[in-house]
Amino acid sequence: MPVFTIAIHGGAGTILKQDMTDEKELLYRQGLSDALDAGYNVLQKGGTSADAVRAAVCSLEDNILFNAGRGSVFGKDGHQEMDASIMDGSNLMAGAVAAVRNVRNPVELAYAIMTKSPHVMMTGSGALDFAKLHGISVEADEYFYSDFRYQQWKQMQGSDEAALDHNVKVSDDKKFGTVGAVALDINGNLAAATSTGGMTNKQFGRVGDSPIIGAGTYANNNTCAISCTGHGEPFIRAVTAYDVSCLMEYKGLSLREAMAVVVHDKLIRLDGEGGMIGADASGNVEMQFNSDGMYRGMRASDERSEVAIYK
Amino acid sequence: MPVFTIAIHGGAGTILKQDMTDEKELLYRQGLSDALDAGYNVLQKGGTSADAVRAAVCSLEDNILFNAGRGSVFGKDGHQEMDASIMDGSNLMAGAVAAVRNVRNPVELAYAIMTKSPHVMMTGSGALDFAKLHGISVEADEYFYSDFRYQQWKQMQGSDEAALDHNVKVSDDKKFGTVGAVALDINGNLAAATSTGGMTNKQFGRVGDSPIIGAGTYANNNTCAISCTGHGEPFIRAVTAYDVSCLMEYKGLSLREAMAVVVHDKLIRLDGEGGMIGADASGNVEMQFNSDGMYRGMRASDERSEVAIYK
Repeated sequence: MPVFTIAIHGGAGTILKQDMTDEKELLYRQGLSDALDAGYNVLQKGGTSADAVRAAVCSLEDNILFNAGRGSVFGKDGHQEMDASIMDGSNLMAGAVAAVRNVRNPVELAYAIMTKSPHVMMTGSGALDFAKLHGISVEADEYFYSDFRYQQWKQMQGSDEAALDHNVKVSDDKKFGTVGAVALDINGNLAAATSTGGMTNKQFGRVGDSPIIGAGTYANNNTCAISCTGHGEPFIRAVTAYDVSCLMEYKGLSLREAMAVVVHDKLIRLDGEGGMIGADASGNVEMQFNSDGMYRGMRASDERSEVAIYK
Repeated sequence: MPVFTIAIHGGAGTILKQDMTDEKELLYRQGLSDALDAGYNVLQKGGTSADAVRAAVCSLEDNILFNAGRGSVFGKDGHQEMDASIMDGSNLMAGAVAAVRNVRNPVELAYAIMTKSPHVMMTGSGALDFAKLHGISVEADEYFYSDFRYQQWKQMQGSDEAALDHNVKVSDDKKFGTVGAVALDINGNLAAATSTGGMTNKQFGRVGDSPIIGAGTYANNNTCAISCTGHGEPFIRAVTAYDVSCLMEYKGLSLREAMAVVVHDKLIRLDGEGGMIGADASGNVEMQFNSDGMYRGMRASDERSEVAIYK
């Protein structure tokens, strides 16, 4: 019987047990479980890996705890601009959106770009026009609002600093708010998706690695599906997600070996804090990070299952 | 004595001798020569490869013949939106800008993002704000206007089609308007830069491969500097520029062999028409394409020199 798998992440960074209340930890774990179940249910019914990662990422986007969709961080101008991407490993088709506002589920817009347009990447208000044309749900600013994110932004407003963090109490308390999923379906097809609200107080239309195919997201049935979370700039410069694929394809490394090279060597050399989740066509799942913690989880048809936060 | 080299391109596609007048061909060749000289002069004086590719790309952006900077194509809404990127192979630093308006030399903005911000990629009006803050030249819409591009757009306006072409007479007459440069300096440092006005009549904030680090542009002293031109979507899906680097680093291929795999095999399988220029640290320069023609040229300190258009 073919194995199917799904893995998700909800961001990485300075996530320490001592900063967490039991109640908050329970909510994060529940959010991760719910997203895993959403994706797993698609796979269990024989659905595609692309539909499974969409379902899992939508669940995380809808959860106000995670920095993607509802609950995204605020930019310097007080708006929430979001980035997302998706890639189908069966045909190397991809869709991505950068700096879009008011789209309820940016991953659904990325999927529509992949399946309903000749393009891969759209940006800004033009991307929103495309969303409306294709019936993608759009919400008023209030929908995305969370008091927690608003207070984070208020603390930084007026400064030129942008925070990579969920918490901005201290500058070395780095949390990279991103969500993502990778999946293998019963037909052996891999897919990956990533979504984020970016950095608190970001300006100048800054875009990180999440909407960049090859950096934040990559999928290819011959190698792996990868979704990254971390300090976006080094991840772009390292072409992180595709690098794992190349180490497997050209150097013969396993998924685990390839991810270890990228996460624990290549990214470190570029000060690239964060992590990634990966799946291959044999049913292997890896979740690796070089930060203190990464919200993460996986579930497979052979009963493997895990939800974790800390190292 | 150390070798230094520069190569440039001004777009690829259905560029046929029978469609060209002698006068027009002369102008294109002169434009390519001028850009080569601008970059070569920087290298000859001991300048960096990053400065050389900036100089060459600025020359092509300033030339109304090429689809980048002045003379960029018109989008569906009648505006000219431009994309550019640059990467320094000595430190893997990179800068990129997508969907920006009114910036005279988008490659200079990409360079400012690389050297004067903690970010890699900026988009839209936010990127223009950053440009103004850092004294990057901004021009009124009229500066970018060319009658030739305007007529191209007028022919397509009202349709939902976007043209990948310089000419839109027939749908299979594909020309991918992009400019780019790669260089090796006397200190053995590689750099690459790419700039484009994108597709005629483009809409929805569509972005191609030119501003995507790893797709349109990549540079790493250990392997190569690459700038691509072609149908942007397959180039993004193939992570084209970084793929050449990985084939060299992980599989031990030469620059020529690696580019041949990507241009004549991998891209073909994704319907990816176009080409690329590349340089390595040993002074090798390659210009390969799978289309009918590619505006291109190279010059090296050991007297190698070439300007060419057709296959």
